[in-house]
Amino acid sequence: MFRQFRFSVVLAAMLLAALVVPVFADSPDPTGGATLEANPNAGLNFSWTLMTGFLVFFMQAGFAMVEVGLSRAKNAVAVLTKNFMDGLIGGLAYWAFGFAFMFGGSALASGLSDGNAFIGLSGFLLGGDAYDVTTMELWFFQMVFAATAATIVSGSLAERTRVPAYLAYSFLVSAIIYPIYGHWVWGGGWLATLPFGAGAKDFAGSGVVHAVGGMVALVGAALVGPRIGKYDAKGKARAIPGHNLTLVVLGTFILFFGWFGFNPGSTMAATDLRISVIAVNTFLGGAAGAVAAVYYSLLKTGKIDVTLACNGALAGLVGITAGCAYVAAWASVVIGVIAAIIMIWAVGFVENKLKVDDVVGAVAVHGFGGLWGLLSVGIFADGTYGGVSGLIVGDTGQIVAQLISMVVVVAWSLLTGYAVFALLKLTMGLRATRKEELIGLDASEHGLDAYAGDIITEEAAAGTLR
Amino acid sequence: MFRQFRFSVVLAAMLLAALVVPVFADSPDPTGGATLEANPNAGLNFSWTLMTGFLVFFMQAGFAMVEVGLSRAKNAVAVLTKNFMDGLIGGLAYWAFGFAFMFGGSALASGLSDGNAFIGLSGFLLGGDAYDVTTMELWFFQMVFAATAATIVSGSLAERTRVPAYLAYSFLVSAIIYPIYGHWVWGGGWLATLPFGAGAKDFAGSGVVHAVGGMVALVGAALVGPRIGKYDAKGKARAIPGHNLTLVVLGTFILFFGWFGFNPGSTMAATDLRISVIAVNTFLGGAAGAVAAVYYSLLKTGKIDVTLACNGALAGLVGITAGCAYVAAWASVVIGVIAAIIMIWAVGFVENKLKVDDVVGAVAVHGFGGLWGLLSVGIFADGTYGGVSGLIVGDTGQIVAQLISMVVVVAWSLLTGYAVFALLKLTMGLRATRKEELIGLDASEHGLDAYAGDIITEEAAAGTLR
Amino acid sequence: MFRQFRFSVVLAAMLLAALVVPVFADSPDPTGGATLEANPNAGLNFSWTLMTGFLVFFMQAGFAMVEVGLSRAKNAVAVLTKNFMDGLIGGLAYWAFGFAFMFGGSALASGLSDGNAFIGLSGFLLGGDAYDVTTMELWFFQMVFAATAATIVSGSLAERTRVPAYLAYSFLVSAIIYPIYGHWVWGGGWLATLPFGAGAKDFAGSGVVHAVGGMVALVGAALVGPRIGKYDAKGKARAIPGHNLTLVVLGTFILFFGWFGFNPGSTMAATDLRISVIAVNTFLGGAAGAVAAVYYSLLKTGKIDVTLACNGALAGLVGITAGCAYVAAWASVVIGVIAAIIMIWAVGFVENKLKVDDVVGAVAVHGFGGLWGLLSVGIFADGTYGGVSGLIVGDTGQIVAQLISMVVVVAWSLLTGYAVFALLKLTMGLRATRKEELIGLDASEHGLDAYAGDIITEEAAAGTLR
Repeated sequence: MFRQFRFSVVLAAMLLAALVVPVFADSPDPTGGATLEANPNAGLNFSWTLMTGFLVFFMQAGFAMVEVGLSRAKNAVAVLTKNFMDGLIGGLAYWAFGFAFMFGGSALASGLSDGNAFIGLSGFLLGGDAYDVTTMELWFFQMVFAATAATIVSGSLAERTRVPAYLAYSFLVSAIIYPIYGHWVWGGGWLATLPFGAGAKDFAGSGVVHAVGGMVALVGAALVGPRIGKYDAKGKARAIPGHNLTLVVLGTFILFFGWFGFNPGSTMAATDLRISVIAVNTFLGGAAGAVAAVYYSLLKTGKIDVTLACNGALAGLVGITAGCAYVAAWASVVIGVIAAIIMIWAVGFVENKLKVDDVVGAVAVHGFGGLWGLLSVGIFADGTYGGVSGLIVGDTGQIVAQLISMVVVVAWSLLTGYAVFALLKLTMGLRATRKEELIGLDASEHGLDAYAGDIITEEAAAGTLR
Repeated sequence: MFRQFRFSVVLAAMLLAALVVPVFADSPDPTGGATLEANPNAGLNFSWTLMTGFLVFFMQAGFAMVEVGLSRAKNAVAVLTKNFMDGLIGGLAYWAFGFAFMFGGSALASGLSDGNAFIGLSGFLLGGDAYDVTTMELWFFQMVFAATAATIVSGSLAERTRVPAYLAYSFLVSAIIYPIYGHWVWGGGWLATLPFGAGAKDFAGSGVVHAVGGMVALVGAALVGPRIGKYDAKGKARAIPGHNLTLVVLGTFILFFGWFGFNPGSTMAATDLRISVIAVNTFLGGAAGAVAAVYYSLLKTGKIDVTLACNGALAGLVGITAGCAYVAAWASVVIGVIAAIIMIWAVGFVENKLKVDDVVGAVAVHGFGGLWGLLSVGIFADGTYGGVSGLIVGDTGQIVAQLISMVVVVAWSLLTGYAVFALLKLTMGLRATRKEELIGLDASEHGLDAYAGDIITEEAAAGTLR
Repeated sequence: MFRQFRFSVVLAAMLLAALVVPVFADSPDPTGGATLEANPNAGLNFSWTLMTGFLVFFMQAGFAMVEVGLSRAKNAVAVLTKNFMDGLIGGLAYWAFGFAFMFGGSALASGLSDGNAFIGLSGFLLGGDAYDVTTMELWFFQMVFAATAATIVSGSLAERTRVPAYLAYSFLVSAIIYPIYGHWVWGGGWLATLPFGAGAKDFAGSGVVHAVGGMVALVGAALVGPRIGKYDAKGKARAIPGHNLTLVVLGTFILFFGWFGFNPGSTMAATDLRISVIAVNTFLGGAAGAVAAVYYSLLKTGKIDVTLACNGALAGLVGITAGCAYVAAWASVVIGVIAAIIMIWAVGFVENKLKVDDVVGAVAVHGFGGLWGLLSVGIFADGTYGGVSGLIVGDTGQIVAQLISMVVVVAWSLLTGYAVFALLKLTMGLRATRKEELIGLDASEHGLDAYAGDIITEEAAAGTLR
């Protein structure tokens, strides 16, 4: 009890702190009149950014459905709780701390003046000068990205992680781990200004969102340990079938749909007509990934594994996320196909070599797929957008920047992820007991059954109904 | 049979009436050329209003999933039928009558000239001068709001209400109850022009949509009576678990997603850059509500109840709906937390004190949450938008207007809701028989099983398949 | 094994071909700067077109949920695989071939110069001059339409069709059948320029998308043959209940939501303010269809069949799709009611007269509903938009053009659909074996169980868990 309480004290303190932030700001433009006058397209670009941000928010439902479907019925409530809460807690953490750490010093909007190449230091709680329509627009779009990074980890930890510990994790990842690496790439930090190519480029977050999430998922799943029964006495991995593949496919559709917010929305401007190229590339990357995975499955086993198709699509989408604005249509197809192949390899690598039990394949899809996305920019960027040119047009500088950002994202995510999960293991405890796990987290941690029967009819039949 | 027939006569008469409305109008602008010339931003604002309206429409799916998940499998078809049809019937009712009652006299668009402070009287069937692009845009956005108000009631009546009676109700609430109160607040009626503060303010409908729906739900559920088995012999409430909590969480995600249409869309203009503040506040209100409910649940019981998390988020969203445009980010968090606390209290109050069986907690979430939303405007409005200032900036007028609108919405909704349900009880009958309820409405009212087994395989196994 | 391999060779060759298409184009505008300068509203219209296109993409999830819900649990994975993959494969086919066949020669955007009245011949692989923001925008919106046409067929073939054959079909329909008829109507082909009325008109695709899909579904289902047990020894049709009606309703909601992209988005411009009228008409058509179907069901059987309500809504939506821009609100209601009546008749006609087993009613909803949509333009178009006038305003030319396009779409779809399915029957085999069908396609073709139990807990209980 007290452990949970400790955490809610933090939340309460945060809210209290918000109250003392000045309500009225001096220079900012909370109504937007001045902004619109200065930029007549602000309305269009706000509309685009918010609407695509809404789609990204909806991806939370997709992650929830994929994970719950791939889990067993006895843990459905635990999975749902994690997925429902992580984005919301992460969003509050991003409001209090994360956004300031990520965009402070970027000068992208009012109230974001203080920060350095390593970390941002202004914009906390959206108070003061950050009470501005442009700052709020930026916050909203960035917050749904932070929430996505947080929820990626959930799937790898399913079915045996204590939910309160997971909730504390989601606060910490959104407040600290995600925004600091994000600052380096998107907030004007040191990776963005590397003296190679155009600096490290990651258009919509193959690295910032997916590789961070995937690598944190790797250490998280390693520290929590595999589910009971995942490995046999000889250490050989066994399949533990999920309880509802219909939800997996529904969730993947929702994620694919949301990705059209994720990637095209990352221009944060509909006046940047490259949005159409981005939408096309996003579709092609995902489609090619799914097709590659399905035909791999057919050739290898003679059967089509629909969960592999879903993960193929997701890997393709993750892979194209960094380069979607910089590459041609054909390159998106190639990137998607390769992403699917990497994902299939990585699933086996994580499960059989690293002996890490990743319930949904998050490490393979988001972690390795995200790294491939970063690399692919250095290969396939064709120089038609943003001055980013890769190997195919003879430029060798960009791939150096990309390789550096890949090394950095792996190191940062593994180290900080380890620190967070090790801390939680020591303080709150990460893992349910063997008994709790065997009867299921729903009964033990939540006191609920996701798919309850009808007690009234049973009582009526038994003659005990009053 | 005849009872249902009676109702379809109304529908047929309505369609017939539509046919005699002139196809061509004189002054209106059905193509939009003149409108665009007069206002070059019309395209942007139409796009914003329609797209956010589509999101609001999608909330119907969210309501359906939440309610079906919290009900038992034997009533799933009945729940789905109500939820699928109420918005569509409500939309037709709003087309025929509701819109005219609500916006007639508002002069907000072509064909809306006639009306008074109590009721609007033009715009019926979108005929004549209302055949205009701006009128149609307004209608669409308002229609999805009317449909939302209608469907809120559904959840409180689940599992024992006769479906044809419910369908008749959804016509009446959208044709009469919702639009008349709506006229008073949004159609230029007497509450909007109260001589306190800026008049009664309800930005996106904490009162107009949610409190109306929630209070009608209260009388509806009271008149239908509790489900068999809900109260034991001593009158103590018992939990009747729903059959699919996965759907409850999916539905809540859909509702949260749709709320980003509901609140930010209510500017009906993307040129109003306050939309970013509204989106941020909407998220923060919902997130804070969910977190408050979860930590309440943890502290009180040591377990996390995911349905409470969902209702916490919804309560926070309902609470922030009235004030989303008028308050700062920190205030949204406070409003959301308080909304969750009120909701938790109200669930117990309705169930244990009023002895009303509200299957999904609609009265607590939408009714009490909506009232809190109205009140919170009078407290937290910071004067940066729309000239609305609450107690925190030292203005005491606004809260008077808010209190009046709260009293009015409770009185109006309870009275008219009682009239409608009492009428339906007398004419069509509200309640399924005991036998029907025990075997489930799906078998008795619909002749369907939502989750049927496979008769063919069974026959093949039994050797009776031909 | 080899049969599947054969098909993947085609895919590989396609990807290879893409690589040799020049990356850089001469005249096109891949960044969009020039386009935005020439048309300051391009950003708004791109935003509108892409966002509505995203909604149309999401309809894939709706089709999947409707079909899986109406099928039996033992075939859920097969249904999901078809629905997940057909749009993605179809999209790749449309990228390689379909788009060029459909819009080549239309001169609607860069790289679409070559083509004739029968077929387009430029724009393959979005290479060369087609690497342009406007061409990409057009492609994206049209691709999601092609994917919709492909997936309509899926439902009629459920539960007994071999999945690899279906995937090959989805390539062929999107590469050839859909785009060629589409070229005639939307790509500047011979139906668009008929000398009657304003030429054949089909605003958002009652014919191009739905009638094509529905008619191909008819031949497909006829060639595959009915499911085992669908007809008794006397040839009388029997109901085979689906396994999850909740998903059917969820899917229908998603489809309805997506339709607001489908129809209003078809202006491809938010500066065309008629979008509000289109949105209103779309809602009214669907709502009227659902209400008509429900009251038909109540009058006929005394019970409400929710699947009929869903199909009524869908039929109304299909019916209003061709005319949504051309008719008044009242006419949309009439069109929706008639569409539902036609659908109900057609379901019986297909099942009992043609003896074709169409699992979801795709032929009735999309095929016959689509034909009615085409016809309704010739009746109800009121001349206020696009110069399209039907019988109600005394013009008799338009209905002639519509009748011609109806005859053509039926002939084209049945003939080419027959050719494709007959070819697949000969080469890959269309139908699962009797044994596979009886045990279910999931176990036989996919080696998966959509709703698996928990092997670990079972083993723990049995004491065999290590």
